[in-house]
Amino acid sequence: MGGRGPSQAGIRVDAARNRSLLLQAALELVAAGGADALTMDDLAARARVGKGTVFRRFGSRAGLMQALLDHAEQGFRTAYVLGPPPLGPGASARDRLHAFGLARLASLKVTGELARAADVDPRTRYRHPSRSLARAHLAGLLRMAGPVPDPELVAYQLAAFLDAGLLLHLNGEERMSLHRLEKGWRKAGKSWWTR
Amino acid sequence: MGGRGPSQAGIRVDAARNRSLLLQAALELVAAGGADALTMDDLAARARVGKGTVFRRFGSRAGLMQALLDHAEQGFRTAYVLGPPPLGPGASARDRLHAFGLARLASLKVTGELARAADVDPRTRYRHPSRSLARAHLAGLLRMAGPVPDPELVAYQLAAFLDAGLLLHLNGEERMSLHRLEKGWRKAGKSWWTR
Repeated sequence: MGGRGPSQAGIRVDAARNRSLLLQAALELVAAGGADALTMDDLAARARVGKGTVFRRFGSRAGLMQALLDHAEQGFRTAYVLGPPPLGPGASARDRLHAFGLARLASLKVTGELARAADVDPRTRYRHPSRSLARAHLAGLLRMAGPVPDPELVAYQLAAFLDAGLLLHLNGEERMSLHRLEKGWRKAGKSWWTR
Repeated sequence: MGGRGPSQAGIRVDAARNRSLLLQAALELVAAGGADALTMDDLAARARVGKGTVFRRFGSRAGLMQALLDHAEQGFRTAYVLGPPPLGPGASARDRLHAFGLARLASLKVTGELARAADVDPRTRYRHPSRSLARAHLAGLLRMAGPVPDPELVAYQLAAFLDAGLLLHLNGEERMSLHRLEKGWRKAGKSWWTR
């Protein structure tokens, strides 16, 4: 910073760069030890900033997990909104619904742990913009695939089945294979959007 | 206690009575101020015991909520396992599945807040015995109502829709009426067990 103090724009650029560096350091820690091993202390040490900076930036560990998840999910959102078919535009609504579930299942190992770690408070679980966008996407496809009664409610039901915490439990503790879960998604699909 | 000290059986009876008194005091606090207002401090004060006693008994606030929920749900379990039809034995499997969801929705205001408050850690969310029993019940009815592919997985999907946190969010923030949610449960039913 110069003697005249940083400009407003300079502060914003610095803040964005610091945030990006912190997220990068956090992703490295998760890659090395899993989401559970990531602590605010470790992150501060690795990024060589004070712990207060980490808390100011993300609010809490759950906030950090949510930020990491957003970072990791941006690619998925782009894929289903703008990407190639069958996930993106160009395929039928039914094929896109189908592809949506399979893509979630395929990325379970990568983003699932982050999603589960970010999901701590049942009162805010359904409010996150990324979940709202996914539900709006599903409801829109259901309307096109229709006739589906109450597509908003069915979108919630489908999203509940694709919840990372549930899928990780089914795939982990219940030892249901990804193949079996994919079949379950297909069957759910058959009952809702292929009649 | 006599001068010779309490017997083992006496200690167990005291422990059960103390637990029962603590749960009663906690229910009174929840009835007065809602689940969110219940703190371990308030409970200790109302039951006139040390805070340490409350923590030893329930482990954590989540543990207390779970104990309260068990207390409140015992009646529901008895009703669907042993009670009168259509929820209990005597009705067809399809009618019992139907009645199960409607009964959950009907008790949402009473037990929903407790269930949401008890549900804090996504890693233990699906392990609780009360949830396992409900899923086993649903899977058993699905098998009888069949043919349903993979009734264990479908039971998880149905239970996910009846999750208290989700239903309270839909009924509260999303302003979906209980009537609309009941219709959603009927429609989910139609797609799974009435084909």
